[in-house]
Amino acid sequence: MSIIVQKYGGSSLADIDKIMRVANRIIDAKKQGNKVIAIVSAMGKTTDNLVTLANQISKNPPKREMDRLLSTGEEISMSLLAMAIQSLGENAISLTGPQAGIMTDSIHNKAKIINIVSDRLLKELENYNIVIIAGFQGLNENNDIATLGRGGSDTSAVSIAAALNADLCEIFTDVDGVYACDPRIVPNIKKLTAISYDEMLELANLGAKVLHPRSVEVAKTHGVTIHVRSSFNHNIGTIVKEENKMEHNGLITGIAHDFNVAKVVVFGIPDIPGTAANVFRELAKSNINIQMIVQSSQINNKNDIAFTCSLSDARDAKNILENIAKELGAENILIEENLAKVSIVGAGMMTHSNIASQMFEALAKSDINIDMISTSEITISVIVDSSQCEKAVKALAEEFKLV
Amino acid sequence: MSIIVQKYGGSSLADIDKIMRVANRIIDAKKQGNKVIAIVSAMGKTTDNLVTLANQISKNPPKREMDRLLSTGEEISMSLLAMAIQSLGENAISLTGPQAGIMTDSIHNKAKIINIVSDRLLKELENYNIVIIAGFQGLNENNDIATLGRGGSDTSAVSIAAALNADLCEIFTDVDGVYACDPRIVPNIKKLTAISYDEMLELANLGAKVLHPRSVEVAKTHGVTIHVRSSFNHNIGTIVKEENKMEHNGLITGIAHDFNVAKVVVFGIPDIPGTAANVFRELAKSNINIQMIVQSSQINNKNDIAFTCSLSDARDAKNILENIAKELGAENILIEENLAKVSIVGAGMMTHSNIASQMFEALAKSDINIDMISTSEITISVIVDSSQCEKAVKALAEEFKLV
Repeated sequence: MSIIVQKYGGSSLADIDKIMRVANRIIDAKKQGNKVIAIVSAMGKTTDNLVTLANQISKNPPKREMDRLLSTGEEISMSLLAMAIQSLGENAISLTGPQAGIMTDSIHNKAKIINIVSDRLLKELENYNIVIIAGFQGLNENNDIATLGRGGSDTSAVSIAAALNADLCEIFTDVDGVYACDPRIVPNIKKLTAISYDEMLELANLGAKVLHPRSVEVAKTHGVTIHVRSSFNHNIGTIVKEENKMEHNGLITGIAHDFNVAKVVVFGIPDIPGTAANVFRELAKSNINIQMIVQSSQINNKNDIAFTCSLSDARDAKNILENIAKELGAENILIEENLAKVSIVGAGMMTHSNIASQMFEALAKSDINIDMISTSEITISVIVDSSQCEKAVKALAEEFKLV
Repeated sequence: MSIIVQKYGGSSLADIDKIMRVANRIIDAKKQGNKVIAIVSAMGKTTDNLVTLANQISKNPPKREMDRLLSTGEEISMSLLAMAIQSLGENAISLTGPQAGIMTDSIHNKAKIINIVSDRLLKELENYNIVIIAGFQGLNENNDIATLGRGGSDTSAVSIAAALNADLCEIFTDVDGVYACDPRIVPNIKKLTAISYDEMLELANLGAKVLHPRSVEVAKTHGVTIHVRSSFNHNIGTIVKEENKMEHNGLITGIAHDFNVAKVVVFGIPDIPGTAANVFRELAKSNINIQMIVQSSQINNKNDIAFTCSLSDARDAKNILENIAKELGAENILIEENLAKVSIVGAGMMTHSNIASQMFEALAKSDINIDMISTSEITISVIVDSSQCEKAVKALAEEFKLV
């Protein structure tokens, strides 16, 4: 008997009709002779609504309590889905993340799964053949709920698939698979039939919302094949798998964009060794993820350090840096918002040197001003004004023949 | 340092403004030099909304999943309340029932607390002075959430107060205390300054919604003094305490009424020993709580057995009895709904023999027909048509001088 892990996102579970449809789909997979584990997100806009409630109390609610609050969303959908399957005459049981043995580290709001203690999960799977698990959540060493960050249910699913050596991990979503860029911006964009872990990881890290970045990392580490597909039809979606099993068709596989980016600038810090290290050590202590860094010299032996990170991290970073500004000798700290990051990703890039200039020329031709640039082996990212993001994505999709 | 346990009901936590008000009240109690544990119910209509959602899937949803679903309501309010207290500059931590060590038996939807493992609770109380606990829920021996039934947060609060030998248990609600009957029916009804455990237990069991019956049992067993009071003002409410500490003012302390009652009639079962036992043994196995029982003889050596129970139990009872009707030799099973139970309660009744006739005469004078009667040491209950319930309560309040 095969083990299949399926993950259903919030839009696939947005109301009772959709929950019944998902229940039928799970039962189909079970009737094909599989043991099925389904990981669920919160219904529709539940998480957003809970965030709104918390923000009425505090703009910066305590992270431990926030985790406990948000994790109720998945607990509601798992219970309703288990009820739905039972109402259709099949046995099923729901388990919270802690009950499923998903153990995390202690970093609230963006916890990492460190272990899966699968005793109970295996026992229930033996008894029921269908087990529904709340995604996004796990138990930390303090015996508290910790959440994996927005989109974390993908990581729950892939981690469970890895722990149980499942035969397949299907990520059901509201689109037909992974597209070379957001189809809301370029409607005739190509759907990818397959993509390597590394490329998918870059796209996800750079803002493609279709998979949680950490889920791709876990899939790569454990060799879990992911099938990203629609919960609304039976079309084949996109397979995420190892690079060496891929055929390459073009230099660039996809384009990601991300509005959740801000630039923090620390002005006028003395040009002495170790200053930059001081800045980033303090930020690392608070788990702020830095993306691009640019350091520029002023004429008077002082430097400006600019870096990008997510919007919420930028606000935290500003507070932290203001507290140690005197110590750093910094003159001022500013945040710039209303930015977007646009990135091209492709494993083919490694063997071609002219991709960067081709990208910059295409953007220049469309009158798009580039604020910062960063590159890695298989990606090039630029920061642009948020109002120019769509235009940039369209220009690059055309330039690299992804339509 | 005293330990105070407070319980806030759903109407006291219905929106963010009310949650902030409760947060301030808790902080006041802490500033008076106490360690405070607050037990919370779900916000406003949350539980009802979750029930509606489940009933869209099934009229009779699986009880284990229902418990998991409903218990999210208290988890939401506990997290928000802990955030609210922190936003006001005091430390607080929220704990779920399982985290607070509330261990229950395995009867989903109406579990009983069997033990409180207070290690973590005591540790957090030492660290924070304010601990918020989700009411209504505990952990059963299968490591699953089980709920204590509607109103169960009262029982959570009294059980925690008993386990920690707290100095006071305050039950905050949306009324000023315990009234001799529902003030929505008799607006000028007396508020009780004190009531004995036994009387409160009867009133609660017979339909007074102000306290969960099991909470009064636990309070009686462990000698926990309860103060029922309003969360919207600082008036003294009603003290629930031992009988021997009471002064009695009248024969009748209060009147309860309950629309959640149905009559199940099993027609024409053979008049042989053990038949009634067979009926009630089967019902007990399914945890159906029987209230009144009447057996009447037909002329042909057959009996009718009628009993009352809650509406939902009546539907379950009908299903169970229909399955074994042949075995019992029963001819037919019917449910009668649209009934109400009206009860008078008073410890003074024990030493006065004419209370029953006084009650029946008062009802007769108001043209109210009595369907069934049951009595115990300190109560007399009658079943009447639901349309006559209000009239009956009014007549009895006047007869026994409770206005």
